[in-house]
Amino acid sequence: MDFAPDARTRELSERARAFVDEHVLPAEPVLEQQLADAPGEWSFRPILRELQQEARAQGLWNLFLPGEEGAGLSQLQYAPIAEITGWSPKLAPTAFNCNAPDTGNMEVLHDFGTPAQKGDWLELLLRGEIRSAFCMTEPDVASSDATNIGTRIERDGDHYVVTGRKWWSTGAMNPDAKIFIVMGKTDPEADRHRQQSMILVPRDTPGVHVVRPLSVFGYDDRDHGGHAEVVFDGVRVPATNILVGEGEGFAIAQARLGPGRIHHCMRALGMAERALSLVRERAGSRTAFGRTLAEQGVVREWVAESRIQLEALRLLVLKTAWLMDTVGNRQAMTEIQAIKIAVPRAVQQILDRAIQLFGGAGVSGDTPLAALWAGVRTLRLADGPDEVHLNSLGRAELRR
Amino acid sequence: MDFAPDARTRELSERARAFVDEHVLPAEPVLEQQLADAPGEWSFRPILRELQQEARAQGLWNLFLPGEEGAGLSQLQYAPIAEITGWSPKLAPTAFNCNAPDTGNMEVLHDFGTPAQKGDWLELLLRGEIRSAFCMTEPDVASSDATNIGTRIERDGDHYVVTGRKWWSTGAMNPDAKIFIVMGKTDPEADRHRQQSMILVPRDTPGVHVVRPLSVFGYDDRDHGGHAEVVFDGVRVPATNILVGEGEGFAIAQARLGPGRIHHCMRALGMAERALSLVRERAGSRTAFGRTLAEQGVVREWVAESRIQLEALRLLVLKTAWLMDTVGNRQAMTEIQAIKIAVPRAVQQILDRAIQLFGGAGVSGDTPLAALWAGVRTLRLADGPDEVHLNSLGRAELRR
Amino acid sequence: MDFAPDARTRELSERARAFVDEHVLPAEPVLEQQLADAPGEWSFRPILRELQQEARAQGLWNLFLPGEEGAGLSQLQYAPIAEITGWSPKLAPTAFNCNAPDTGNMEVLHDFGTPAQKGDWLELLLRGEIRSAFCMTEPDVASSDATNIGTRIERDGDHYVVTGRKWWSTGAMNPDAKIFIVMGKTDPEADRHRQQSMILVPRDTPGVHVVRPLSVFGYDDRDHGGHAEVVFDGVRVPATNILVGEGEGFAIAQARLGPGRIHHCMRALGMAERALSLVRERAGSRTAFGRTLAEQGVVREWVAESRIQLEALRLLVLKTAWLMDTVGNRQAMTEIQAIKIAVPRAVQQILDRAIQLFGGAGVSGDTPLAALWAGVRTLRLADGPDEVHLNSLGRAELRR
Amino acid sequence: MDFAPDARTRELSERARAFVDEHVLPAEPVLEQQLADAPGEWSFRPILRELQQEARAQGLWNLFLPGEEGAGLSQLQYAPIAEITGWSPKLAPTAFNCNAPDTGNMEVLHDFGTPAQKGDWLELLLRGEIRSAFCMTEPDVASSDATNIGTRIERDGDHYVVTGRKWWSTGAMNPDAKIFIVMGKTDPEADRHRQQSMILVPRDTPGVHVVRPLSVFGYDDRDHGGHAEVVFDGVRVPATNILVGEGEGFAIAQARLGPGRIHHCMRALGMAERALSLVRERAGSRTAFGRTLAEQGVVREWVAESRIQLEALRLLVLKTAWLMDTVGNRQAMTEIQAIKIAVPRAVQQILDRAIQLFGGAGVSGDTPLAALWAGVRTLRLADGPDEVHLNSLGRAELRR
Repeated sequence: MDFAPDARTRELSERARAFVDEHVLPAEPVLEQQLADAPGEWSFRPILRELQQEARAQGLWNLFLPGEEGAGLSQLQYAPIAEITGWSPKLAPTAFNCNAPDTGNMEVLHDFGTPAQKGDWLELLLRGEIRSAFCMTEPDVASSDATNIGTRIERDGDHYVVTGRKWWSTGAMNPDAKIFIVMGKTDPEADRHRQQSMILVPRDTPGVHVVRPLSVFGYDDRDHGGHAEVVFDGVRVPATNILVGEGEGFAIAQARLGPGRIHHCMRALGMAERALSLVRERAGSRTAFGRTLAEQGVVREWVAESRIQLEALRLLVLKTAWLMDTVGNRQAMTEIQAIKIAVPRAVQQILDRAIQLFGGAGVSGDTPLAALWAGVRTLRLADGPDEVHLNSLGRAELRR
Repeated sequence: MDFAPDARTRELSERARAFVDEHVLPAEPVLEQQLADAPGEWSFRPILRELQQEARAQGLWNLFLPGEEGAGLSQLQYAPIAEITGWSPKLAPTAFNCNAPDTGNMEVLHDFGTPAQKGDWLELLLRGEIRSAFCMTEPDVASSDATNIGTRIERDGDHYVVTGRKWWSTGAMNPDAKIFIVMGKTDPEADRHRQQSMILVPRDTPGVHVVRPLSVFGYDDRDHGGHAEVVFDGVRVPATNILVGEGEGFAIAQARLGPGRIHHCMRALGMAERALSLVRERAGSRTAFGRTLAEQGVVREWVAESRIQLEALRLLVLKTAWLMDTVGNRQAMTEIQAIKIAVPRAVQQILDRAIQLFGGAGVSGDTPLAALWAGVRTLRLADGPDEVHLNSLGRAELRR
Repeated sequence: MDFAPDARTRELSERARAFVDEHVLPAEPVLEQQLADAPGEWSFRPILRELQQEARAQGLWNLFLPGEEGAGLSQLQYAPIAEITGWSPKLAPTAFNCNAPDTGNMEVLHDFGTPAQKGDWLELLLRGEIRSAFCMTEPDVASSDATNIGTRIERDGDHYVVTGRKWWSTGAMNPDAKIFIVMGKTDPEADRHRQQSMILVPRDTPGVHVVRPLSVFGYDDRDHGGHAEVVFDGVRVPATNILVGEGEGFAIAQARLGPGRIHHCMRALGMAERALSLVRERAGSRTAFGRTLAEQGVVREWVAESRIQLEALRLLVLKTAWLMDTVGNRQAMTEIQAIKIAVPRAVQQILDRAIQLFGGAGVSGDTPLAALWAGVRTLRLADGPDEVHLNSLGRAELRR
Repeated sequence: MDFAPDARTRELSERARAFVDEHVLPAEPVLEQQLADAPGEWSFRPILRELQQEARAQGLWNLFLPGEEGAGLSQLQYAPIAEITGWSPKLAPTAFNCNAPDTGNMEVLHDFGTPAQKGDWLELLLRGEIRSAFCMTEPDVASSDATNIGTRIERDGDHYVVTGRKWWSTGAMNPDAKIFIVMGKTDPEADRHRQQSMILVPRDTPGVHVVRPLSVFGYDDRDHGGHAEVVFDGVRVPATNILVGEGEGFAIAQARLGPGRIHHCMRALGMAERALSLVRERAGSRTAFGRTLAEQGVVREWVAESRIQLEALRLLVLKTAWLMDTVGNRQAMTEIQAIKIAVPRAVQQILDRAIQLFGGAGVSGDTPLAALWAGVRTLRLADGPDEVHLNSLGRAELRR
């Protein structure tokens, strides 16, 4: 057992850290200004394009993707880099072309796409020239139970016809999101986990309606393409657009979710570190009742509890990454569930304490804290609410 | 000891309940539409004016104000009515002319104003013809410690000159907020709690700059006039604008805060009841893993815990109201602090559980939950962060 | 609505308070000594008898029992007196002849006993001449589900034959516990809640075997007769010993549990107040790192949180008592469940904080804290674990 | 970074696991019987001696001690073995001669003892022929602040005279505890952390009075020598008995506490695993309301939360061990504080949930749960209450 990161991890982490400090954090107010200057505009703002160019030039690009087509990093090696991007989630993940949902979509195409599917979409995504969306959650049902899915994908000669309503399709408000991966049922009579399929639906196909943006608390998340409600109204796509084959949708979703969840957790740790960094700065300089905040017991307690939570949970994230690398995502499922539950919850609490310390500045746009909080809050219900995972984890533990 | 409300309370509660059900809840989508139709507009939307007219006609008006000029209700009698307005905080309190900060400002004018001050401002406020703001919190200092206040109110002949920067002046973005009550220091050398004074500053006085709106978790709270940063740049007002006299600011603030805090708590209870009502509806109709949500253990547990918290805390709020009525606000200070800490925290938790149950709908604008949550979250840091009150309450308890 | 206690309540509370301060608290070390001097002896120690004599002489006797045979107090009037006895639960409840399980057993006999049953047992109990036990919980099954009960009560001519194994029969180690109320099944085929009956079994009946004492954490609770495992091995009692009739056991249990639970809650509040009183004393006199404990933020926070919890929960207990008095125990079931869950949990937390403040003295016998804690801990699982009640309360709330 | 244990760790863990399963767990009822058969007897019961003989024969002996005189294991290698001994803390640690406080005392002698001190005491301890006690905590002061210590160690010619009162001297009730390490002040006027010294006081020295045993939640902990109050009444020992030299007491204490704390944490993890193992067994076989406990949502949630806590905290303990091995105890201080706070708290909660699941059996002696709980509860206040460590950790974090 060895807790020291390897040389490549250290080297890349340092470069990522430097990039974020020198390029990304100073770009945050620029992004805010560019968003304010272009109300109602959902495509990436120019500053994002500039950062991408610079990051790509520095080789900080597609680091999330294991194997040749990506940077060849293991999950364990990628972890601290993903964490660093969490310091500025509106900018850094995208700057590195490592932002959700594009990462998950690229993984799906990489692992399950035909050469044609890769040629059509993966290459453009890896170059950052288009964006993508993942259309799984539905407004009318509890989507954490995949048997509830109502969208239909029906074969009709050489085509499939997709009909249904999705929402929380992150990024889909961005007109550059040219390709949607859609989950639906091809056979509602099949076994529980063989009813679903996934299919590629180009945005511009007739019948695709991006209906409206959804807000998260009061945020529209316009910086990364928002969250859309999308209606598929008898959308016809070639039969070759199906991923792997009929009935494979649940398996692909499962494969996609593992890395997706751990990457969320990695970034969330970075958000918490950002918050602690802001807290340190504030606590040392702000005075109340004759003492700096840093001298007040309750502030010290908050900071100490936050540090303990972070240190323990980061190790669990890293061990999960190591398991994914060594025994595979499926064997790491218990650990993936564990961090999916524990990390966002803890980070939310850490952010809440930071907000409390900052008072009015904490809930407003004058610090990044409130927006970070809202982002992390959604992780407790995205990809299945925590309660579903707790139940599943508990059942497994009781069967050990 | 008797836990049954009196006849007048019951009668008024029923009427308030009916008004909210029949007029206010159906008006919520109307408000959203009117807000969407008038971006950047901070004055009250027409639907609010209509509701005010109707409520006033029904005698549901100024119920918050004890004594003759108000409706003559005690705090205990007002409590369930205020709770009912909490079901729809964007509309109902204003409809009844019972919304913060105008209520607190009317109380201050009522209790401390000269006849001239009342004639100039209180009457207009009681008729709902203008709005007001309370300018106390400052961006540069921890304002929970009143000795930190940096704004100066300096005598200059027959005038006072006000200089300073305030923020979180709720309602001040509304151009109809014609009068600002400003807290500042007249004598920084005086005793700790005699340094501060309060003064009336009409919005249109030269040197008053409403600089920008502040957001709360992405919300601009435009429905009730938002939250402004306001600069007072050498603002000259007649010396007669001072409230009571120099050095009385801290005492007035204390007098204002008691009712303000309990009214916040009353409304917060109503927000929680609204959330539970939504939860009941959803849990009975939504199915996951073969059972309705209402049949799932974790949902029952959430609902039970929420009910227990609400029942206990409502009683504490009512007892606090009874103490304010019978022994006075000052003697009820411990209880006011207790509910100020306990109620928003519990209601926030109840709202968080409801959001979790609603999933994506919970964090978005499709339910009122996320906006309610954001509103309650600010109560944990408004009027002094909870930690300051916990410390003070603990010190008092240890001295008993 | 009125939060002031009536004159009789005030007068009796003051006398109970004075009795506990003058007689009971000073008797605590005497009891400890008498227990140490008589190892293995389970009957009441002499000091208890002395306190009973004195209390009875002062009219502080059987105050728990509403109606003529008791003191005629309502639950609401009894509440503060029961709370005061919680300051010294080893001595005060027994001194007043208001200790569990005798109170519940007297209520059962009072409400459901025939004149003969009352003549045989109730009068002796009301005079404090004998003690009693309630034999419901069984070691082999989850007894919170009454259909699980395995003990059989079978008719055989003019007799019933009782066969089964019970445990947690509190007080039964005391040889003066002359009468056992036993719950068992007369008809396992009947409707869910008509299978059970209750029957009076005199301790000295052949076949009654008090097998062994059980400990609570490391305590044997010898002061109040411990907790016994009892085997009923074909025990024959006259058919007239049955309470009310066959199939009435569940209903009687329900009737008994309401007052039992609220009395536990009332006493638990007193335990918490005792702890806070000890904390106040200690915090003012103990110094660490240059300041008294009372000056340390974390101690103030603990004390404040404790005070808030106590004030809110006491009101909920009082309202529940008022409901029991005005609309009846059955109509107060939701509130009884609420306090059954909320009060012991909060008091346990308050005691835990007090223990932490006292350090080594807190976990040892040098303060009453650890023993109080152990007593309260059992309330979270006695009379059905909290989780069962939470589930039931949640279900009811979702059906409102 | 690598999360796989090395070969030696795996091999020793498996042997320790087998020893505990085959020898220790079956010996638990034997110990209980031997304790019951010898009331008032504080020396080790025969079963412990038998287990020690067997363990020593198998080479499972003194594994805690790094370097030649011990087994040569690093902290990281020792960790899983210590965890396994936590499954049966009354027997397993002592069976392996790895029980507190002897381990800490052996470390002190090993690291700081003169050859004569080692010859006199360390060898006997390493062979398990005598036991020892560590006399630091005092009843009259908050001992977490070392400047509070009241015991005096005064030079008088070739001797030191020790005067003071200590308590919570674990193991000291055992007459085989032949040597006491006593902390006291040699120079109250010196710098804050140079006032204290440590000295070896043989039990049989005149003036040493073992006054009384202390209980922990009703337990006397007689199995491992209890916890004593000890008075040192002008005890004269040779000047050569001092450890290192005057003023070194604080430094020695700090050096001793690091390993002591991490070993407590390791064992506590094992206690939690034991509890989960019991829960799994019970939940699968016990039925309530028509379903096994394993099928109930709340039980699954408890078990899942427990598993998450354990996995995260075990990693933090292991990383702390690795830091102690690689950069030294002093550099690992933050992590040691973190686990000192987080592990006992989490394990206490896990045990509490297990107790709740077991109901009456959980609080009694019929399961090991209640006794394990009491043991872990004391860890939250032993070696300084958690709050002191939280404060210190928070201060350090704010200074990063």
